[in-house]
Amino acid sequence: MTTGGLSINGQRLWHGLNVSSQIGAFRETGLQRLALTDEDKAIRGVFVDWAKDAGCNVEIDFAGNIFARRIGTEPQLPAVCVGSHLDSQICGGRYDGVLGVLCGLEIIRALNDAKQQTRRSIEVVSWTNEEGARFPVPMQGSGAFTGQLPRDVVLSCRDNGGAVFGEELSRIGYAGSLGPRSRSYDTYLELHIEQGQLLERAGIDVGIVTDGYKCFGFRIEIAGETAHCGPTAMEARRNAAVGAGRIIAAVDDIGWKYAAEDGKTTTSHVSCWPGIPGIISEWARVNVDFRHPEPGRAEQMRTEILAAVEEQTARARVSYEVKNPWTFGSPGFSAELISTLRRSASALGHRTLDIKSQAGHDAYNLATVTDAAMIFTPCIGGISHNVAEAITLERTLPGANVLLQTAVSRANR
Amino acid sequence: MTTGGLSINGQRLWHGLNVSSQIGAFRETGLQRLALTDEDKAIRGVFVDWAKDAGCNVEIDFAGNIFARRIGTEPQLPAVCVGSHLDSQICGGRYDGVLGVLCGLEIIRALNDAKQQTRRSIEVVSWTNEEGARFPVPMQGSGAFTGQLPRDVVLSCRDNGGAVFGEELSRIGYAGSLGPRSRSYDTYLELHIEQGQLLERAGIDVGIVTDGYKCFGFRIEIAGETAHCGPTAMEARRNAAVGAGRIIAAVDDIGWKYAAEDGKTTTSHVSCWPGIPGIISEWARVNVDFRHPEPGRAEQMRTEILAAVEEQTARARVSYEVKNPWTFGSPGFSAELISTLRRSASALGHRTLDIKSQAGHDAYNLATVTDAAMIFTPCIGGISHNVAEAITLERTLPGANVLLQTAVSRANR
Repeated sequence: MTTGGLSINGQRLWHGLNVSSQIGAFRETGLQRLALTDEDKAIRGVFVDWAKDAGCNVEIDFAGNIFARRIGTEPQLPAVCVGSHLDSQICGGRYDGVLGVLCGLEIIRALNDAKQQTRRSIEVVSWTNEEGARFPVPMQGSGAFTGQLPRDVVLSCRDNGGAVFGEELSRIGYAGSLGPRSRSYDTYLELHIEQGQLLERAGIDVGIVTDGYKCFGFRIEIAGETAHCGPTAMEARRNAAVGAGRIIAAVDDIGWKYAAEDGKTTTSHVSCWPGIPGIISEWARVNVDFRHPEPGRAEQMRTEILAAVEEQTARARVSYEVKNPWTFGSPGFSAELISTLRRSASALGHRTLDIKSQAGHDAYNLATVTDAAMIFTPCIGGISHNVAEAITLERTLPGANVLLQTAVSRANR
Repeated sequence: MTTGGLSINGQRLWHGLNVSSQIGAFRETGLQRLALTDEDKAIRGVFVDWAKDAGCNVEIDFAGNIFARRIGTEPQLPAVCVGSHLDSQICGGRYDGVLGVLCGLEIIRALNDAKQQTRRSIEVVSWTNEEGARFPVPMQGSGAFTGQLPRDVVLSCRDNGGAVFGEELSRIGYAGSLGPRSRSYDTYLELHIEQGQLLERAGIDVGIVTDGYKCFGFRIEIAGETAHCGPTAMEARRNAAVGAGRIIAAVDDIGWKYAAEDGKTTTSHVSCWPGIPGIISEWARVNVDFRHPEPGRAEQMRTEILAAVEEQTARARVSYEVKNPWTFGSPGFSAELISTLRRSASALGHRTLDIKSQAGHDAYNLATVTDAAMIFTPCIGGISHNVAEAITLERTLPGANVLLQTAVSRANR
């Protein structure tokens, strides 16, 4: 199963991560490299240079996705794609996303070092704005590529400051000419830090993502009425901020109710207007996110959360609207590809752990257009979306080599 | 008791209110005229013109307070001051503040019309930034005048956008040369809409403010930790937004507990950071405000609220700090002046209702340096700090004439 002599150059991978970590460095150990900012432009430039140095043909599509292709001996065949993202959360770590892109690049370099050709082309892809931390659509580039997100929706998307995705993309020089589905793939592989503690606790280095938690989210817009904080009696108030607070508390209670089953609820945003002393707020917004390993239980959480929103807003005498609902769940990864990952790991002598992903990944979108699968590698303490996110090279290399072996074996089939 | 032949010209007062209502008009019926904005500059210009037209000598102090003085026959005596404010809330009504200033102006005009002199000078004052809706210090101009707020604290105060009070004051042309306590007063009188429903319910037009509710407020800064909304277990979370929400719900419960005694609690602000999808917030802020007619019960509320903050932040595993505490309570209005107000009302045939103010007013600050008292006039439905704030001239004139009679009798004593 192993492809003779090939292995990831750990020192070179680590160097790449260190270079990346300085582009958008945030606080002492973190990263703030939001999509289509100057920092994103800088890391894109580094990646493109490295890919070209490795002999890749680099193309860009309308959403700014970067495709770096090492041409195979039968270039007309659908390629094997290895991808992830270079953007970070607003207060994020140095491995979420970039590790997967750089492991892809190391596959190309390992093949170059060994002077090996592959039958199919191998393409390393950096997907634009996976985090949704600036433009509020996560997995945006991969969704644009697969056609799940219409082109004009992608390009007209605005950040909180009103900047337009398409304009920012042009500004940083990554508005490419390729349209959606600009290529067909044979295979999509993505390596990503686990962002949880299962691997760490099991003492296993290679996670095989078999499925995903059912995840839901929406925004709740709350409408109340301004009034004076002084003479307005409690029973005359319609304080949107109170509606928001009561929803947050109730949603948190529901999270705890499901915690033993590993269900969880999150309020990721709360704000109100006017939000100043002396006046009751007429408007508030809460973002709710909840996830459960079992889809049926996630649906039950949804029912309970919507009932709680109804009850708590009634108590606060405010009205509400549920907006921008989203959901993702089972990515439908390829059973055959998962088997190949397991066999590659076994051939390399690595134990694997089956894991359900609790986060969305670009691989979810790619799975709608090709055979896809994911490898998780350990991160210390399961910490992610935090400046303390950390990995060790030693516990990362097993997964990276499984990625390498699987990509090359798929490229040669 | 009544001063022969003098009365407020209702038509002229109403015209003045209508002119004011067009300066910073907001939505169909409201006002947004924040301190030191172009709208504030515009209404100040109108007021100064009208005061000069009425023969007043106009002076400005370092905080932008405008003093319009009608010189008495014994100008060396401490004057009678009638004041209020021309700024509004961010989403406010058309009578809060400006009614008191224009009633003061109508006293001058009524004396002019009747060609009557007074022994003491009468001064109409517009105090800067009573609302604290832009620069977050309510009753700022009057506090600067009395010396309760140090000059550099006032001038260096910043709005949410970073604009500096002193610079904005210069920009609109109202950075005057007078220092704090630039004059001594014999009397301070302020007429203000009630902002409650007591007068309306009692069918009485003239409220005499005898005391104030004990009011407390502070800001709570909450510190959590960013983490991924997906894999992070409920028990591993330190979500600052959850801390904020739980505080809001608990503080609201305490408000309801005291509602029957007319105690009330308000969350006037809530926000968090990063506040974006996919990431748990590391920081949140909540502003809490609570008021009770009995100081001892207000203290009890304070104890319960602080205990609730402790308990709810512990549940959310976040830390917190209480910042910028403020309080006001009994203004210490002059018993003698209150008696004079009652006698003036009685002489005019108006019933009066004793009211405890539930809001802070510039008169609270003035009461620290002179004999002070306030008149409340009815507002429809008790609605205030809302664009639907409304009054009728017919129910306002009784209070305005009590103000006139009292000011003139005090000026002649």
